[in-house]
Amino acid sequence: MSSLFIKIIQGELPSYKIHEDELTFSFLALDQVNLGHTLIIPKKEFNSWLDVSEKIYTQIHLNSQKIGQAIKNATGCPRVGQMVAGFEVPHYHLHLIPAWSIPDLSFSKAKRYSDSEMKKIQKSILDNLNF
Amino acid sequence: MSSLFIKIIQGELPSYKIHEDELTFSFLALDQVNLGHTLIIPKKEFNSWLDVSEKIYTQIHLNSQKIGQAIKNATGCPRVGQMVAGFEVPHYHLHLIPAWSIPDLSFSKAKRYSDSEMKKIQKSILDNLNF
Repeated sequence: MSSLFIKIIQGELPSYKIHEDELTFSFLALDQVNLGHTLIIPKKEFNSWLDVSEKIYTQIHLNSQKIGQAIKNATGCPRVGQMVAGFEVPHYHLHLIPAWSIPDLSFSKAKRYSDSEMKKIQKSILDNLNF
Repeated sequence: MSSLFIKIIQGELPSYKIHEDELTFSFLALDQVNLGHTLIIPKKEFNSWLDVSEKIYTQIHLNSQKIGQAIKNATGCPRVGQMVAGFEVPHYHLHLIPAWSIPDLSFSKAKRYSDSEMKKIQKSILDNLNF
């Protein structure tokens, strides 16, 4: 069974895409801890980050620096937090979350935003993205 | 002013060391969210992960997979979580936290353990470390 994320990568489910290359796919999280919350995933499904191949894992993290900088510039947040948990979708995903304080880094804060709010932050991140 | 972490790297402050190479240093967090909670830091001080050079950033993340696997084997946890916040010590540090559920990934859970408990988990992680 392909995961929710495979369907997003393949375009079977819609997403607010931030970046795509041969190995990785990045998009706004459906539930946003803070507006601008982005996921980076490998296109190939790995249950755990411990098992991601060296080449793909490196690509994800080098992309994360570029995407993280764009999130910072787009939101004006002092810090972009990172989280990896792995208890829900069984496809490794790196969370990048704009943060103003440590309590901002809590999944219990996650909520849906309107389509217009999501499109606006997507555009702002894309405008600040420098690949 | 050199950070707390520079003093740990230089041995001016004690730590329960897990790994060291030319570019990085890894040790048990002083306050453990769960026993086995490890920090990986660059030896060079960067305030934000956004500014870490490509070579060092890659090294940290490839090391994290080896250290994360050792934490998993040592503790039997189903997941090793990752967190980066950056609101306290101004020297980028990647948290690796053995986790049994999402609420385990909360800094509010962090507490001190005894020297004998710290030495025991350090030994167990080192016994499982495969560099």
